[in-house]
Amino acid sequence: MPQVKVVLVGPRVDGNVGAVARSMANFGFSELCLVDPCPLTDEAFKRAKHANYILRGAQVVDSLEEAIADCFHVVGTSGIVTTGEKHYIRIPLTPKEFAERLKGVEEKVAVVFGPEDTGLRQGDLARCDLLVSIPSHQDYPVLNLSHAVAVVLYELYQGSVHVPSPKKASERERDKLYEFFDDLLDAIGYPEFRRERTSIMFRRMMGRALPSRWEFHTIMGVFKDATKLIRGK
Amino acid sequence: MPQVKVVLVGPRVDGNVGAVARSMANFGFSELCLVDPCPLTDEAFKRAKHANYILRGAQVVDSLEEAIADCFHVVGTSGIVTTGEKHYIRIPLTPKEFAERLKGVEEKVAVVFGPEDTGLRQGDLARCDLLVSIPSHQDYPVLNLSHAVAVVLYELYQGSVHVPSPKKASERERDKLYEFFDDLLDAIGYPEFRRERTSIMFRRMMGRALPSRWEFHTIMGVFKDATKLIRGK
Repeated sequence: MPQVKVVLVGPRVDGNVGAVARSMANFGFSELCLVDPCPLTDEAFKRAKHANYILRGAQVVDSLEEAIADCFHVVGTSGIVTTGEKHYIRIPLTPKEFAERLKGVEEKVAVVFGPEDTGLRQGDLARCDLLVSIPSHQDYPVLNLSHAVAVVLYELYQGSVHVPSPKKASERERDKLYEFFDDLLDAIGYPEFRRERTSIMFRRMMGRALPSRWEFHTIMGVFKDATKLIRGK
Repeated sequence: MPQVKVVLVGPRVDGNVGAVARSMANFGFSELCLVDPCPLTDEAFKRAKHANYILRGAQVVDSLEEAIADCFHVVGTSGIVTTGEKHYIRIPLTPKEFAERLKGVEEKVAVVFGPEDTGLRQGDLARCDLLVSIPSHQDYPVLNLSHAVAVVLYELYQGSVHVPSPKKASERERDKLYEFFDDLLDAIGYPEFRRERTSIMFRRMMGRALPSRWEFHTIMGVFKDATKLIRGK
């Protein structure tokens, strides 16, 4: 079973928060984090039913950064999917593909859901390594928050057969790789106006690949040598 | 898309009925039948949101028999699963298996959900051709009614639609990228004895990332420029 922290950013309907807690218990998850939530009234506890303990134990923080500080992978969810290829930020996996991808991952994963009305903002999405979107009907694609959580956790629970995997790269190593990539862009004189987009695209792609530590180090070495050679001329 | 009629037997919480209607719309279903339901107050319509039309159009009947009269297959759902072989009535499919099974079925299918507290009674279950149960954690296996509906309809929707995804890179483009990567290794004087291993690793990693055509081209551009700059010195 992957270590999953469910992060709700700015939930506005406290009944939804309770329903999320219940869903978490239904699928064997217990770590809930609320970023700047609405007050939790009796309605939340009523909807949580036997999962009251998850609500009571929930971490409450002010920002997404605090919420994901102890997580290795950060996975955003979005109901709105653009099909244009260039919208790099929003190329999503289905919950099923996501569950597949998570098999064998041992580091803690934050699964982040946005507010009921607006979803995650662009800035929050940019912070995510991976994006998950639930396939839904075009006429009314936006699921209730707790239903979206239920579907994603259902897939994770279904897919939770343990498969051993090589050690994944640590956060520091990953940041290092991204630095090296940015450095390479710099060295090759990559156009300034495209740099951020390409940099985010690279993170997102690596996020989807969930590389092992060895893979990170190898690629890092290649980038470093290339950059050095270019600068050394 | 299979013809599905969602049948709620004796729902007691009208907010749930509204949430079920919304879920139905989210996954492209619209035929709802309520057997001896609680009164539907504003709460139900509030929770249904843009799926109000499903609530207004719902068939209301007194018995399960009436509800399924126009259906060819009758599928019951149950949160409680016994493993004893003799309880033949309760050997269930997962929602995923159910969706698989339904592919190509053209007749109308009733998917029947019981009251929130008790679930479907033995007599109702006996009337069903097939039983579906959502895999859930033993400590708290009982899902909220509307969540159970959402998970089952999610699988039916997934099983019946082509999920659009960004155009994947073609084989030729991918080979081109791998060539550029090998070329970069060459340009930086990467040790011969490690080259094949690193080259395979890169392919493997890209394979997992399933990059879009745009992502491939972007990375290819970076590698190409780097190689050119190194060689040009």
